[in-house]
Amino acid sequence: MSVTIACGTIHGVGLGPGAADLLSVRADRLVRGARHVAYFRKAGRPGRARRIVDGMLRADVIEIPMEYPVTTEIPLSDPRYNDCLSAFYAECTQRLLVLAQAGEDVVVLCEGDPFFYGSFMHLHGRLAGLVPVTVVPGITGMAGAWNATDIPITWGDDVLTVAMATLPEDELARRIRDTDALVVMKIGRNLPKLRRAVAAAGREDAAWLVEHAAMPGQRVTRLIEATSVTPYFSILLIHGQGRRP
Amino acid sequence: MSVTIACGTIHGVGLGPGAADLLSVRADRLVRGARHVAYFRKAGRPGRARRIVDGMLRADVIEIPMEYPVTTEIPLSDPRYNDCLSAFYAECTQRLLVLAQAGEDVVVLCEGDPFFYGSFMHLHGRLAGLVPVTVVPGITGMAGAWNATDIPITWGDDVLTVAMATLPEDELARRIRDTDALVVMKIGRNLPKLRRAVAAAGREDAAWLVEHAAMPGQRVTRLIEATSVTPYFSILLIHGQGRRP
Repeated sequence: MSVTIACGTIHGVGLGPGAADLLSVRADRLVRGARHVAYFRKAGRPGRARRIVDGMLRADVIEIPMEYPVTTEIPLSDPRYNDCLSAFYAECTQRLLVLAQAGEDVVVLCEGDPFFYGSFMHLHGRLAGLVPVTVVPGITGMAGAWNATDIPITWGDDVLTVAMATLPEDELARRIRDTDALVVMKIGRNLPKLRRAVAAAGREDAAWLVEHAAMPGQRVTRLIEATSVTPYFSILLIHGQGRRP
Repeated sequence: MSVTIACGTIHGVGLGPGAADLLSVRADRLVRGARHVAYFRKAGRPGRARRIVDGMLRADVIEIPMEYPVTTEIPLSDPRYNDCLSAFYAECTQRLLVLAQAGEDVVVLCEGDPFFYGSFMHLHGRLAGLVPVTVVPGITGMAGAWNATDIPITWGDDVLTVAMATLPEDELARRIRDTDALVVMKIGRNLPKLRRAVAAAGREDAAWLVEHAAMPGQRVTRLIEATSVTPYFSILLIHGQGRRP
């Protein structure tokens, strides 16, 4: 006699920018009900996505931390960087696949929105077609950031450009010059380069840095006044000045 | 004897892209608890924001529809267009101000995120400093749209450009050529112009139209296959193709 087990579903769940009550109602239900909860984190850290749901998980939850391999010694341009990450995502996919094929649902915690510069996308592509996958959109980190400044980001016909601080300096400066509203993410060690690019574009006075948006320790500073910043958690904003009747 | 009444608060509440369970937990609580609920709508229509919260409002709710003046006869470039809208926003501000000064809280329903191309911004600026105003961020309509395509919008170092279809055709084509990922909103009667701009940029094959994202009647179509569309509710997307280990 053989028993057929119905396949479980992998849910990529957007958690929003950081505050527990900024999860969507759909995400909140999935997170609180989940038996299996997976999330990415740096080795030895609690994990930023995991911290957002502190106190929300079932008592009998099974947690699946997925720890990024340490890649700081390998430059981004080195093919070994890509190989290392690729092997890591394949291994994570395999762990989730085994669970789903055994009939278990898994919630994968994603900061912000899962389809907006997120790590879950690397699992989504690998899982597609093998087991059911759903995605729950979330409030982006950048929306948390402009909300923290209490100033609207775009008006009327404003063009918004979202760029990563990992781009070359000239390219960043060109983009900053050529847009109404701006969001820059992935600042990290690129902050000095980003400052120079903003200055080259002549927009230093209009730029804001938001750290830890919608989280404890939220801080909003004009770029020109920013001395010490927590670059990893920062988003740079320039607000649009479009039509406002 | 005089009685001092504590001022009420105006809450600009982001409702997300359309599904009732994509409100944030914070927004859901505010909407369900509100005695006074205000929202923009076209004259004679139920209102898109109002429809998202159907069945969620208190039995004794007092609704405050704010009906846009009919401006279709006035071109956007005519100063009377601006004057007409300006007077309208001033009048709406006054209605909410009177309530808040009488001690009442008011929830203003906002599709998507209130600070991202929204009408609430025009009240926010006018109310600031007069009565307490809070803003609850929401999942943007564009996040609902890329979620509907089941394809991530941005990877790695992708640049995302968000532009309005109201821009001149040449400007649209230039922006479409010069970005990795693209979102175009406010399509309406500008669809033929937008099609030409996408074609001029050589990206017709990559463009998708999403109608009624996260709502009943959601439809995802490749631009080249789109014959009949509901332009007002549509968002055009081109997905980024960045680094994916």
